[in-house]
Amino acid sequence: MLRRAVELFNRRGYDATSMGDLAKELGLTKPAIYHHFRSKEELLEAALDDALDELTAVVEEAAQSTEGASAYERLREVVRRSVEVLAAHQPSVTLLLRVRGNSPIELAALDRRRRLDERLAELVADAAAEGALRDDMPPALVSRLLFGMVNSLVEWYRADGTFTPATVADAIAAVAFDGLTNNDENDN
Amino acid sequence: MLRRAVELFNRRGYDATSMGDLAKELGLTKPAIYHHFRSKEELLEAALDDALDELTAVVEEAAQSTEGASAYERLREVVRRSVEVLAAHQPSVTLLLRVRGNSPIELAALDRRRRLDERLAELVADAAAEGALRDDMPPALVSRLLFGMVNSLVEWYRADGTFTPATVADAIAAVAFDGLTNNDENDN
Repeated sequence: MLRRAVELFNRRGYDATSMGDLAKELGLTKPAIYHHFRSKEELLEAALDDALDELTAVVEEAAQSTEGASAYERLREVVRRSVEVLAAHQPSVTLLLRVRGNSPIELAALDRRRRLDERLAELVADAAAEGALRDDMPPALVSRLLFGMVNSLVEWYRADGTFTPATVADAIAAVAFDGLTNNDENDN
Repeated sequence: MLRRAVELFNRRGYDATSMGDLAKELGLTKPAIYHHFRSKEELLEAALDDALDELTAVVEEAAQSTEGASAYERLREVVRRSVEVLAAHQPSVTLLLRVRGNSPIELAALDRRRRLDERLAELVADAAAEGALRDDMPPALVSRLLFGMVNSLVEWYRADGTFTPATVADAIAAVAFDGLTNNDENDN
């Protein structure tokens, strides 16, 4: 029910969707919906928490697995696991990425998202400091571009389409870390 | 006026914004707005055309400059010029990328966008066929990721911020074509 509500939000826009629209879409009466969720805001909050909890878990695991793993290895792992989360929780992550901050719930979600972005930027900076990443670009910009590419998934990825999450995760890591240009380095 | 209207659409959501909201935002009366645009749809169409016309020009120039330039060189040029368009026309491109197809105008814009995406995918395929790009990934997927990274700009780029369009364009080309990993290839 939450998933289908979120898909409708994504299709119509959250602000333009009423509880009446939702009831129609789900084939339920309004009281039946209110039995589960007291308001549209509660549905929004549940969806944003779903996305943020999953993404936070990915970032925290990467921060904790310091035993032996370099920042570079942990960064590659965060990229791979983020793709899995985006594929598995596509509707709620899509909603999260479109949040504009028009209510306290949205502002709180933007704040959690900002903290995640900061931790990702720190991981990129750590990988650069190790010497694993090229040092001719600001880590903040690299982080934006890397996770911009990851996040773009929500706009075009189809779970029933040609590419599995693993194929996409491998492709993103290959493009971002090794580059598209055909050279011997890519065969290593 | 169009630019400020589009900024409001992006902030509030197009569907959730009324002509009354627009008049308030612009400090105009409703009749004054209607003097320039007959409807909200006409504003939407003007903004989407602005974004699509600019992006189409970039893609068509790349297709035409076949004199001597390889597909790989043309692809790098499209990436660079797309970044310039996104930075210079950020509000209307943002609106375009958020269009969901809820009206004939939106469906027409999605159709034009789809044709642009197809031509970009062809250019990637041509560059791969030349042997300039690695051949272990489907060109359609590479194209999605490459322009997903470019398009992510609209979500975080600030024209008054730290990075100039040229810095961002160079960084995207460096990440996508040469990769983030620090190796001798990057110094070539």
